[in-house]
Amino acid sequence: MAEASRSQPIGIFDSGLGGLTVAKEIFRLLPNEDVIYFGDTGRYPYGPRSKDIVVEFSRQNTRFLLEQGVKMIVVACNTASALALSVIKQDCDVDMLGVTKPGALSAVKATRNGKIGVIGTTGTISSDIYAKEIGELDSKIKVFSLACPLFVHLVEEGYLNKPASKLIAEDYLAPFCTNGVDTLVLGCTHYPLLKEVIREVLGDRVVLIDSAEETAQTVYQHLMSTNILREKTTDVLHKFYVSDLPDRFHQVARHFLGDKITNVIRIDITKY
Amino acid sequence: MAEASRSQPIGIFDSGLGGLTVAKEIFRLLPNEDVIYFGDTGRYPYGPRSKDIVVEFSRQNTRFLLEQGVKMIVVACNTASALALSVIKQDCDVDMLGVTKPGALSAVKATRNGKIGVIGTTGTISSDIYAKEIGELDSKIKVFSLACPLFVHLVEEGYLNKPASKLIAEDYLAPFCTNGVDTLVLGCTHYPLLKEVIREVLGDRVVLIDSAEETAQTVYQHLMSTNILREKTTDVLHKFYVSDLPDRFHQVARHFLGDKITNVIRIDITKY
Repeated sequence: MAEASRSQPIGIFDSGLGGLTVAKEIFRLLPNEDVIYFGDTGRYPYGPRSKDIVVEFSRQNTRFLLEQGVKMIVVACNTASALALSVIKQDCDVDMLGVTKPGALSAVKATRNGKIGVIGTTGTISSDIYAKEIGELDSKIKVFSLACPLFVHLVEEGYLNKPASKLIAEDYLAPFCTNGVDTLVLGCTHYPLLKEVIREVLGDRVVLIDSAEETAQTVYQHLMSTNILREKTTDVLHKFYVSDLPDRFHQVARHFLGDKITNVIRIDITKY
Repeated sequence: MAEASRSQPIGIFDSGLGGLTVAKEIFRLLPNEDVIYFGDTGRYPYGPRSKDIVVEFSRQNTRFLLEQGVKMIVVACNTASALALSVIKQDCDVDMLGVTKPGALSAVKATRNGKIGVIGTTGTISSDIYAKEIGELDSKIKVFSLACPLFVHLVEEGYLNKPASKLIAEDYLAPFCTNGVDTLVLGCTHYPLLKEVIREVLGDRVVLIDSAEETAQTVYQHLMSTNILREKTTDVLHKFYVSDLPDRFHQVARHFLGDKITNVIRIDITKY
């Protein structure tokens, strides 16, 4: 059974492209693992939707990955991790990990003054998940959370270092210039692409936390502890599925992953 | 039959909130008509999606409205009008009208120099629908089309008159400052809310075309010519349905419609 599990792929799902930042770290840290990535580009974004809808979408994504025979599932989307993971993992046959717990852990490790800021989508912030996760690790830490809904669209449209992006970042991040946080969790997988602009607004005194690396570490530890890490292989296979616009996904994903991404297949996720 | 049809409601669907600009004009011009509005807030936005997906979503929206017994359907979303209307109307039992034909007609009436600009979502612009509709009305007119994907998100997040919105408008609209258009079609129902910023960038020499009013006129003429206009009634009923976040819809819709909007009901549109 363990041998069979070892050779099974890791499943990753995201609302679209953002989760590729997590996939990239998993590819780097776990070079022998097969990976199946599903990006729900046909129903993206998840950030402004209700818990009911995000749970329903995430359940379908999970069913699709299970049908592909994955040995574990990484929810590489903060909104789905925040709103759906705790519900879906209850009746999922394989282990599921999200990005919020690793992000919270990184932030707790990084803060020196015990004041952590969190930015994310409306769904992630209204769930208050980061305050809960951080509180479980260290109840004395103060958490300041804020939704930045336009950031994800700026990234999607390539508005990374433009003056308009800086103005919007100044509007959103103003509270973090005065409330004394020394650490800011980028609680949406798109946000790391706005790091430069965010750093310009907040200055170097604030450490920016991107949960991708810590998530890959968590996946590694989980595979080790459950004895299903694939240590050697001759051939590694990465497969990419989306619910809409495979060509556009391929184009953007090549910027993240280079040659690691070959073909992208479109599926009808509503059938799952 | 005609009597029965007269008392049936008009159906309107949109990807979310934007279609309320059209609904408002229909309420004003046709005060005796019952209206059923469906906003697909659970799968919004349609603008960046493929034709296949927009057709599938629009087909489900149409089935839902037909089940409510509507006498005609107004597609109050430019992307759905551009990508799905011609496919779906083929096997729809009632007449369907979109917003692009009325928008094109308004623009042709307004231009003096025969140069018309069109802005819209990626889906609307890549369909080239406005160039086709305008070409059918007057083949000598030159059409300049441009996608402005961030505009819809700026409106959704209330970034209407902010400096960042003006910078983004300056980026997008630069071609229209030099190509000599005297008329610009706001080819997305959200864009009229950015009229002030767009006018600041383009100046008063360019006439801005909002298709809501002309669409209401087209609906009126259609009901007259097919003899199903409801001329008198004691009680008018407007019903609003959405696929997610009814409370948020209610809140925003009250700004558009005031007391005309009472309760908003959430439905599972994927069942249709």
